[in-house]
Amino acid sequence: MIILTLDTSSVTAACGLVDGEQDKLLYESFINVPLTHSQTILPMTQTALQTAGRTIEDVDLLAVCHGPGSFTGVRIGVAAAKGLGFERGILCAPVSTLEALAQNYAGVQTDAVIAAVLDARRQQVYTALFDCANGVITRLTDDQALAIDDAQKFWKNAKKSVIFVGDGADLCYNACKDALPCSVAPPSLRYVKPRGIALAAVRMAREGQTVPVSELHPFYLRLPQAERELKNKQKNQ
Amino acid sequence: MIILTLDTSSVTAACGLVDGEQDKLLYESFINVPLTHSQTILPMTQTALQTAGRTIEDVDLLAVCHGPGSFTGVRIGVAAAKGLGFERGILCAPVSTLEALAQNYAGVQTDAVIAAVLDARRQQVYTALFDCANGVITRLTDDQALAIDDAQKFWKNAKKSVIFVGDGADLCYNACKDALPCSVAPPSLRYVKPRGIALAAVRMAREGQTVPVSELHPFYLRLPQAERELKNKQKNQ
Repeated sequence: MIILTLDTSSVTAACGLVDGEQDKLLYESFINVPLTHSQTILPMTQTALQTAGRTIEDVDLLAVCHGPGSFTGVRIGVAAAKGLGFERGILCAPVSTLEALAQNYAGVQTDAVIAAVLDARRQQVYTALFDCANGVITRLTDDQALAIDDAQKFWKNAKKSVIFVGDGADLCYNACKDALPCSVAPPSLRYVKPRGIALAAVRMAREGQTVPVSELHPFYLRLPQAERELKNKQKNQ
Repeated sequence: MIILTLDTSSVTAACGLVDGEQDKLLYESFINVPLTHSQTILPMTQTALQTAGRTIEDVDLLAVCHGPGSFTGVRIGVAAAKGLGFERGILCAPVSTLEALAQNYAGVQTDAVIAAVLDARRQQVYTALFDCANGVITRLTDDQALAIDDAQKFWKNAKKSVIFVGDGADLCYNACKDALPCSVAPPSLRYVKPRGIALAAVRMAREGQTVPVSELHPFYLRLPQAERELKNKQKNQ
């Protein structure tokens, strides 16, 4: 099963081709510079297919991080996946950005709780906990949007040392390092990468959670800023 | 310090841009399909610079895996680096492929010996041992070319559980799994990646081991097949 993976949900972007059955990374590209994902993701996808000697015809599953994450970023990824999959009706796996992050630790020989954290701005984070028992990843909590102060209590429930992954890792580590045994994942395991997305997508395919393009939607844990401001305005009237 | 990294020394190829001081991966691409590295590495480099919004003018150090590895692969990487660095006289770090592999574990919270292993064909491997003490990588042995039977005795010297990295990882794991406590690195940490190359290059720059383009040479642990055959022929005459 050839999986085309896309991620534009946070500050980084990634595109890859993965042989899902074999957990084999055929091609990946990753970028972490301040550029607009809408300009980079489709050229990255074209290069991925070309460099690996494949076409969109070879793709069996489109795996895209559908959130939580940056509002615009999530929409760019979902829209790109819809565009790529529409004509051929390719099945999609709407992957949790937080699960994709935790899956970076699949097969890593460590015993810890992986706290996936995305910076949601305004001193908030999107977070979820996953157990990593010598490389076997098990989800412990749902994806949540929390104020960092509340998130600290949430992470303290972990019964092992905590490893922060995601673009909020440094922020959370600095907020928590005196309160709980924790560390930050190395850069190679810190950001969303094609293999992590593909592992989550393989799990979803096995559990019947893949969807047609028409049912692929962004997954938001909070209202967008514009809607929040409208609600506040209406409340204050 | 912006480091342009290149690797074509084994079955995979990789190209990246890394901010060396910050251990920050700006861009990476990686390929693991049976294509000719000579056809892929320069387009990959061009895409890396373009996608990250950089030019060759921005590169402070060229880091290339100069061996051990595939004879042709090593020559392709070294020749590409020479071509890219020649006009502007960019300094080069001739990185050991085995050190680049071990550096994948820099910052990974595990306590083990990393055995970097490249399949040298004819039941031989290129190998070196590195200590990983909670993510701090220290070289334990020189790079060596060994028959797999001799390599088993070599790996048994490790005083901790062994993690195999490199394109010979499965081969070596299958040869050793009944004789010593060992495992194979997950795909994300198994192959040569830009961050590992850059970390080795930063160490080399710190220790004054960078060289001008003219002094960049392939590093071979064995004679090439043609020379071996000539020697055998001369011996038998």
